[in-house]
Amino acid sequence: MALSTTDVQSRAPVPAVTFASDARALHIVDQTRLPGALVVLALTTLPEMVEAIQSLRVRGAPAIGVAGAIGLALLAERAALGNPATFDAEIASAAAALRAARPTAVNLAWAVDRVLAAGQGGDAAAAMRAHAMRAEATAILEEDIAMCAHIGAHGATLLRAGMTVLTHCNAGALATAGIGTALAPIYTMHARGDGIRVFANETRPLLQGARLTAWELERAGVPVTLLTDGMAASVMRSGAIDAVLVGADRIAANGDVANKIGTYGVAVLARHHGIPFYVLAPTSTLDPATPDGGSMHIEMRDAAEVRSLAGVATAPTGVLVHNPAFDVTPAALVTAIVTDQGVFHPPFHFAS
Amino acid sequence: MALSTTDVQSRAPVPAVTFASDARALHIVDQTRLPGALVVLALTTLPEMVEAIQSLRVRGAPAIGVAGAIGLALLAERAALGNPATFDAEIASAAAALRAARPTAVNLAWAVDRVLAAGQGGDAAAAMRAHAMRAEATAILEEDIAMCAHIGAHGATLLRAGMTVLTHCNAGALATAGIGTALAPIYTMHARGDGIRVFANETRPLLQGARLTAWELERAGVPVTLLTDGMAASVMRSGAIDAVLVGADRIAANGDVANKIGTYGVAVLARHHGIPFYVLAPTSTLDPATPDGGSMHIEMRDAAEVRSLAGVATAPTGVLVHNPAFDVTPAALVTAIVTDQGVFHPPFHFAS
Repeated sequence: MALSTTDVQSRAPVPAVTFASDARALHIVDQTRLPGALVVLALTTLPEMVEAIQSLRVRGAPAIGVAGAIGLALLAERAALGNPATFDAEIASAAAALRAARPTAVNLAWAVDRVLAAGQGGDAAAAMRAHAMRAEATAILEEDIAMCAHIGAHGATLLRAGMTVLTHCNAGALATAGIGTALAPIYTMHARGDGIRVFANETRPLLQGARLTAWELERAGVPVTLLTDGMAASVMRSGAIDAVLVGADRIAANGDVANKIGTYGVAVLARHHGIPFYVLAPTSTLDPATPDGGSMHIEMRDAAEVRSLAGVATAPTGVLVHNPAFDVTPAALVTAIVTDQGVFHPPFHFAS
Repeated sequence: MALSTTDVQSRAPVPAVTFASDARALHIVDQTRLPGALVVLALTTLPEMVEAIQSLRVRGAPAIGVAGAIGLALLAERAALGNPATFDAEIASAAAALRAARPTAVNLAWAVDRVLAAGQGGDAAAAMRAHAMRAEATAILEEDIAMCAHIGAHGATLLRAGMTVLTHCNAGALATAGIGTALAPIYTMHARGDGIRVFANETRPLLQGARLTAWELERAGVPVTLLTDGMAASVMRSGAIDAVLVGADRIAANGDVANKIGTYGVAVLARHHGIPFYVLAPTSTLDPATPDGGSMHIEMRDAAEVRSLAGVATAPTGVLVHNPAFDVTPAALVTAIVTDQGVFHPPFHFAS
């Protein structure tokens, strides 16, 4: 199912998920192969789709939502070719399996349910209902692309030509179907020749910054310099950083931000050095039902991720490890939150 | 030349260098084998000693100074068994080769020169002069052990039983002939049953915290938890850290501290969270001739250290990397500097 391993010369950002209007397959970049090789997979079956989500071949909340939506639409089209009597059961079962592929991913369940609802046609023929589901999945994809573009446009108003920004983890094209969230203003400014430069934290333990952010920026022609996470402080002190741009996994009503572990430390360092700290995320990341960061659940991950690097043991076999997936940056350290709807300054009050 | 790969049951800290008074070999822990195996090498020849220093089998400024001193004394004893007419030339040549094994290591040149000077006996027999050199090397070893013990005692006055401390890189027994510098107060308190606990930053890119600090503390029975460098901030915010203890490579007259990359960021985080930040180092680390950190040279290291680990690529092949070996923590962020001579509080004024 690998389509291509060639290094395409195009300088356009590489989104995680693509889907042509007449496509019979869901195309994803296999992110487990990066940065070594750009491998695009064409997924057509439920087991392939579930495996791709579970194995993090596709990751990033917006991207897995889009992937689940398109996946379900494709499976519905195939089901519509079979027995009409089992169509409903087949798409419900596929939707459940896709949702369960990554149960904590709110975007995935939301997108799958939206496509499933579009297929509830009562007496309409299965082919008609599958057609409506493809239309809904395509709409979700296009909304994601537009969301990224809007974040890029709003975020760019906070930056100036020639600036150098620091980012952490990967909230880039590889996390979306478009030009990313935290990286969207960078691509927007780069495209208009604004000479923006990036320092990328490698982001231990899983190295999304080294493997993904450095790769996608370099490939798009954006000047990028890779740092280990402990180097950001001295680079800030040198005066080289004009702004910090990060994504978010969840934003509480008061503006507290849950994001990849290490983000909070970057926010403290930015404040110490008088550098603006911007959080860029889709409106869907806002969670008005969560009053503040104190009520956010922080997932603890396996010790093996810290005890090894790229499969090589780097620490004593049984040593105790603390491995939270996320940390919470209090709103007081956030200069502004940028969504597809605009730029929000403190004090933050996100309501439903 | 490997003496042992068994896991000794002793709970005493494992120093980098050991030398019994009647020994015919320099014993070092091969730190390139940690944390996988504890291998002690018995070095007797100049090529073995030079290789051990160059390959970082022995590292840490105090430890390589002691290793060079003992190495030269052993080589002098062998030279004294040969032609008396060539003794001076032989020891001078050995000293030059040892010094050149790591030319930027000030402690190494200082210790080698001290042993060489002890062998300048005019008309005395070569055996007598070699004997004086062994006595000097043994004195350097014992001074190092005492230096660590004094730092441990002084540092312990800043801590209380039951505290949890954070450390960065390795300034432990594995960097000295004794119980280390930054880790000395921890071993001192642990030995008297004071229930001290440690969080260890893994310290990318070379992972001295994961490979060495976590290993030596765990082996000595000190409760230790390993963190990636980006996790320290959220652990501090949780209230779990009572103090930060780090070593130093060089301390300027005004108290600015050069230490392993990442130290400065830890200092900023400690200040933000109201946590005391202590620097522990031998008096020899004080450099009154350097007025402040602005005049310190920061070594830039190879990009490959950041782009890969143990031969496994973790980033795009040619991506630009910024890889400073050290950073400078301004004195304003240092709560106290602990040397073998005592505890120094700000404002710092170190004079020759």
